[in-house]
Amino acid sequence: MGGSLKENTIIKKMKALVYHGPGKKSWEDKTKPAIRESTDVIVKIIKTTICGTDLHILKGDVPEVAEGRILGHEGVGVIEETGNAVTGFKKGDHVIISCITSCGKCVYCKRSMYSHCVNGGWILGHLIDGTQAEYVRIPFADNSLYHIPEGSDEEALVMLSDILPTGFECGVLNGKVQPGNTVAIVGSGPIGLAALLTAQFYSPAEIIMIDPDDNRLETAKKFGATQTINNSRENAVERVKELTGGIGVDTAIEAVGIPATFDLCQSVVAPGGVIANVGVHGKSVELHLEKLWSENITITTRLVDTVTTPMLLKTIQSKKLDSKKLITHRFPLNDIIKAYDVFEHAAKERALKVILIND
Amino acid sequence: MGGSLKENTIIKKMKALVYHGPGKKSWEDKTKPAIRESTDVIVKIIKTTICGTDLHILKGDVPEVAEGRILGHEGVGVIEETGNAVTGFKKGDHVIISCITSCGKCVYCKRSMYSHCVNGGWILGHLIDGTQAEYVRIPFADNSLYHIPEGSDEEALVMLSDILPTGFECGVLNGKVQPGNTVAIVGSGPIGLAALLTAQFYSPAEIIMIDPDDNRLETAKKFGATQTINNSRENAVERVKELTGGIGVDTAIEAVGIPATFDLCQSVVAPGGVIANVGVHGKSVELHLEKLWSENITITTRLVDTVTTPMLLKTIQSKKLDSKKLITHRFPLNDIIKAYDVFEHAAKERALKVILIND
Amino acid sequence: MGGSLKENTIIKKMKALVYHGPGKKSWEDKTKPAIRESTDVIVKIIKTTICGTDLHILKGDVPEVAEGRILGHEGVGVIEETGNAVTGFKKGDHVIISCITSCGKCVYCKRSMYSHCVNGGWILGHLIDGTQAEYVRIPFADNSLYHIPEGSDEEALVMLSDILPTGFECGVLNGKVQPGNTVAIVGSGPIGLAALLTAQFYSPAEIIMIDPDDNRLETAKKFGATQTINNSRENAVERVKELTGGIGVDTAIEAVGIPATFDLCQSVVAPGGVIANVGVHGKSVELHLEKLWSENITITTRLVDTVTTPMLLKTIQSKKLDSKKLITHRFPLNDIIKAYDVFEHAAKERALKVILIND
Amino acid sequence: MGGSLKENTIIKKMKALVYHGPGKKSWEDKTKPAIRESTDVIVKIIKTTICGTDLHILKGDVPEVAEGRILGHEGVGVIEETGNAVTGFKKGDHVIISCITSCGKCVYCKRSMYSHCVNGGWILGHLIDGTQAEYVRIPFADNSLYHIPEGSDEEALVMLSDILPTGFECGVLNGKVQPGNTVAIVGSGPIGLAALLTAQFYSPAEIIMIDPDDNRLETAKKFGATQTINNSRENAVERVKELTGGIGVDTAIEAVGIPATFDLCQSVVAPGGVIANVGVHGKSVELHLEKLWSENITITTRLVDTVTTPMLLKTIQSKKLDSKKLITHRFPLNDIIKAYDVFEHAAKERALKVILIND
Repeated sequence: MGGSLKENTIIKKMKALVYHGPGKKSWEDKTKPAIRESTDVIVKIIKTTICGTDLHILKGDVPEVAEGRILGHEGVGVIEETGNAVTGFKKGDHVIISCITSCGKCVYCKRSMYSHCVNGGWILGHLIDGTQAEYVRIPFADNSLYHIPEGSDEEALVMLSDILPTGFECGVLNGKVQPGNTVAIVGSGPIGLAALLTAQFYSPAEIIMIDPDDNRLETAKKFGATQTINNSRENAVERVKELTGGIGVDTAIEAVGIPATFDLCQSVVAPGGVIANVGVHGKSVELHLEKLWSENITITTRLVDTVTTPMLLKTIQSKKLDSKKLITHRFPLNDIIKAYDVFEHAAKERALKVILIND
Repeated sequence: MGGSLKENTIIKKMKALVYHGPGKKSWEDKTKPAIRESTDVIVKIIKTTICGTDLHILKGDVPEVAEGRILGHEGVGVIEETGNAVTGFKKGDHVIISCITSCGKCVYCKRSMYSHCVNGGWILGHLIDGTQAEYVRIPFADNSLYHIPEGSDEEALVMLSDILPTGFECGVLNGKVQPGNTVAIVGSGPIGLAALLTAQFYSPAEIIMIDPDDNRLETAKKFGATQTINNSRENAVERVKELTGGIGVDTAIEAVGIPATFDLCQSVVAPGGVIANVGVHGKSVELHLEKLWSENITITTRLVDTVTTPMLLKTIQSKKLDSKKLITHRFPLNDIIKAYDVFEHAAKERALKVILIND
Repeated sequence: MGGSLKENTIIKKMKALVYHGPGKKSWEDKTKPAIRESTDVIVKIIKTTICGTDLHILKGDVPEVAEGRILGHEGVGVIEETGNAVTGFKKGDHVIISCITSCGKCVYCKRSMYSHCVNGGWILGHLIDGTQAEYVRIPFADNSLYHIPEGSDEEALVMLSDILPTGFECGVLNGKVQPGNTVAIVGSGPIGLAALLTAQFYSPAEIIMIDPDDNRLETAKKFGATQTINNSRENAVERVKELTGGIGVDTAIEAVGIPATFDLCQSVVAPGGVIANVGVHGKSVELHLEKLWSENITITTRLVDTVTTPMLLKTIQSKKLDSKKLITHRFPLNDIIKAYDVFEHAAKERALKVILIND
Repeated sequence: MGGSLKENTIIKKMKALVYHGPGKKSWEDKTKPAIRESTDVIVKIIKTTICGTDLHILKGDVPEVAEGRILGHEGVGVIEETGNAVTGFKKGDHVIISCITSCGKCVYCKRSMYSHCVNGGWILGHLIDGTQAEYVRIPFADNSLYHIPEGSDEEALVMLSDILPTGFECGVLNGKVQPGNTVAIVGSGPIGLAALLTAQFYSPAEIIMIDPDDNRLETAKKFGATQTINNSRENAVERVKELTGGIGVDTAIEAVGIPATFDLCQSVVAPGGVIANVGVHGKSVELHLEKLWSENITITTRLVDTVTTPMLLKTIQSKKLDSKKLITHRFPLNDIIKAYDVFEHAAKERALKVILIND
């Protein structure tokens, strides 16, 4: 009897990456999550990754993250246990975990604005424990997980948790990228590259990638950029104007999140064009309405809704999108501290997305 | 023979309202315009009006307006003479003059973005002589004039030159007003009221009008506002939140053109909503991307394209829109200096649009 | 003890309108429904109504309806009991029952195409027992019911179960009704009138109502039709052409469901226009592609998705829509056989919607 | 003097392909066209081609084509002379001739529905003399011609006169092809292949090509079809269902123009899908509303508007589209009778588009 008790205790522990306030994290033992609501499932993580947002949290930029929180909002896994009300998934199913949790019932979910779900939204690794762990509890599982088709390369599908829908929905869809159009993407980090990859679904004539890092621009070229501009050396506004017959671009995608890059977007967008903001901003920006009021432009913002995940999955399966290109490093989940170190020095390490493997 | 020469000279003179640099205007003799291009017509003005933009010009805010320029970009008239290439109009036709001149051939015109016509755009009373005169030359007449149907009330149609398409295109269409939605209009001047009138085409549940002038708010109530807020006395943000269950509005229309009112729009727009800028801004504004980056909002700007003029004409003819409500004062064209005086003191005079009649 | 058993048995009985094969129905005792799935609720009916579709079922036109089925897919009620997984509703809540049951999770629900929900769709009074009873079991209650705001006129809201969203979604939205446009609605029965009422949300210039019954056309006039055509006496095609300057209508809404009326729509739609089919068709129709292939038209079909129910509720609350106009008769629920009789002779009885009240 | 007269006479003659009633055509001397309206230009043909519609005319299927008419509505050329009102083109400019003539001023042109231009539309080689000649008069030149960029492969641009905009506008745009979607194209002739090429702008997951000719299906595979079905041997409906998990396709493009192929589209379209008709139909078809009324589908028809020509030109210039793939044969313009012979036996000759070169 004592033995079985001990066994239970052992089973209920797991390893997880835990936030302990600004600058502090550790890979440590935590209680394994259990079903709380009938709509929950417990997922054993197969692969997860680190997001730029996790770095922001660790800097203390996201104060609502409590100390003791397990980080991470991306990953694929296998279902370990399901709540009574879950109908779409069963133990043993392989699933993509969406970074956005959606109840499917609230006024925002009914408008396909899952990002603002009144019962969910971005909560994983933020307001509830996340995916950088051996196990994770996923609320509203029927609406927040996606089945992995048999025979898929699961690593490629980790990119569907956040980065690809973010680049696509916030950048490409909001930016109204169209065949024959001209697009500038400011920022050639992982999220800018995700926008670059998915912008090509719509066959724009030109995609101009702007970044101060030559390595990243080289990657952008390989990923399909038709032009690159190193804005640490070149006058990006002048160069864009040259490349567009003086008119500017139909779509400018902001994929950095600072005033200077948003400003650049304002300077290169053509009359009638769109600025699609993807970057996470910590400060306000100056909007030049004294010039733009008469330019018939549109500016959009968006927290990813992940409503396009099923569609993006189809494009990966039909080989219209090679999402593995975004993966540069792989580590055992146990080495996540090392992985964070690489990701924090992404430019030096030439890192885009790092995969953590839970064997 | 000398007599007939003199007669010709007399015929070629007309009266016009002329800009003579900041703060200076006069009602004076000018040469009557003549056909220059085969696509021109000469229109004898029947009725014209004064726009807030004319006041801006007179303040010196629009430096590209040369001294000696005849002002005015609105009006109805009768065709006096047509260029050889004009096929849609003939001498004697009664016409609405659009504030936007469009060639119909350039890349912007083909995209229905007449505001940015490379051969036209807003030029009347700006880069070429305008409509506050007995006669006006209209370039690209086939694309820039609209036939007045028999039996119309021509005064009502002066509102189609600029103010109604501006309120409708820049405010209502860009603002995506929909049945059942909640709309806030910041600014209850003529342009805000034009947005108010045309927003009702789409049956929103609530239209909240915000202005510091009680008289204007009273007018807004009469014109269909469901709620009014005097933001000189009340905390407009709090009041809008109260009226919308704490959520904010689906559409916020900025109809003033200063940082404070644009800021108010940012504070009251709901997640997923639209800020449609109508106001002419002289300064940049602060855009709170640190809050709005994740709010899934859209901000639009637009110089009116006047592409909806034919549609608006149908709504007037079918009595869905009573545009005469916007007219508060009438003067003979000869008294235009007096009319300017009234319009410059619009609040005190309770003036919206003033009609100048050329008998 | 025997007594309490008897009491239980009595409680579990209720009255209901039961289909017993073509031409046969009765108001009889049935077992009161109970929760089966954790997402179910049991609703006590307050008010219900009869749909044209119920008459089709009784004619034997809908063979998948089994004998013994309780009919009815419309109504308002009060929640009696909720399944464990229901989070949006509780005992005592007053609710609108949607004619469409939606699971909220399937691929169609995620596309807002609830009509094709793989776990629901139109099942009430069709594949499962319906609302013409004292109680009804509603599956997937969180997605298939809507809260009735305090102080509402509940009778008016019965129109939100089916007829208003059907007229609006299938006719008006699919038909792309726009300000200033011209609309023809073929069929002035309840569903055509629902389209007429909701078309006015968009301020079309003309709504031409076509029907062979003068009483119904008179009602249409009262409900906002700008023109009526009695196609038993008049040549409807010629009349529409006269009324539209020979061009035809921008939107033709088919609200009958027979080849002749669909044919009429083909004859009156203008180049670039839309035919929005609302009628339930029992036979194929002849599509004149030999003429229409080059006319740039759109034809749409739709089983109502009821995605606009929340929006329509707002329009009723804000008095943009007076849905009670559609109600002509009221009966106690016990008199439903009499109510069916009236509704079956709708033309003679001048009946539109009949309300059944469960006291 | 006699000499110069003779010279004039010689200059004013040209060779042209002339229709002489059903089944009769000849390559013969005709008067060289001259400017008639100030908006005309005269174009010297560089390259032209033959359309399936020309074969229809020769069969007598297009009775409004008068005997003596010069056929042809496609081609590139060089401007020889311009009318006084032409501002966008000058002698010596190389141009793409659009199959659709648009005045740019009428109500349809203003709605971008050039196909129904009240002063133009499809008139070339139909109601006025066409492009299968050494010279052609182009009315409303400013709106009906497009500049050829320096250094372009002009042969590739002949495909922009008709076939590419037709496949794209009528098939792909109307069919709402989207990333990840499933498309069936019924008919793998030139127009079906044009739809296939341009559908790929939107990265659908699957494009299923259906045709009874194995050679054409082989071409389709080379052009990007992911699946092919020979419907002379296979049950196309069953095969499409197999390939789509029993659901059907999101978009079915009809590119033949007979009842059987339209019927096939009705059988394979999924709920919520679109049937985009491209084919020219000579007979009515049976529309299965008894099944489709509740399937939430859209059916579209369209005569090409050629509004996407500038956009398609950009996709060719940026190498997103290789339009030369559609060209299989080349002949001197003088051998046009031989070219017609090849094109009339397209299946046997494996002909798609034939280019006629005017040296």
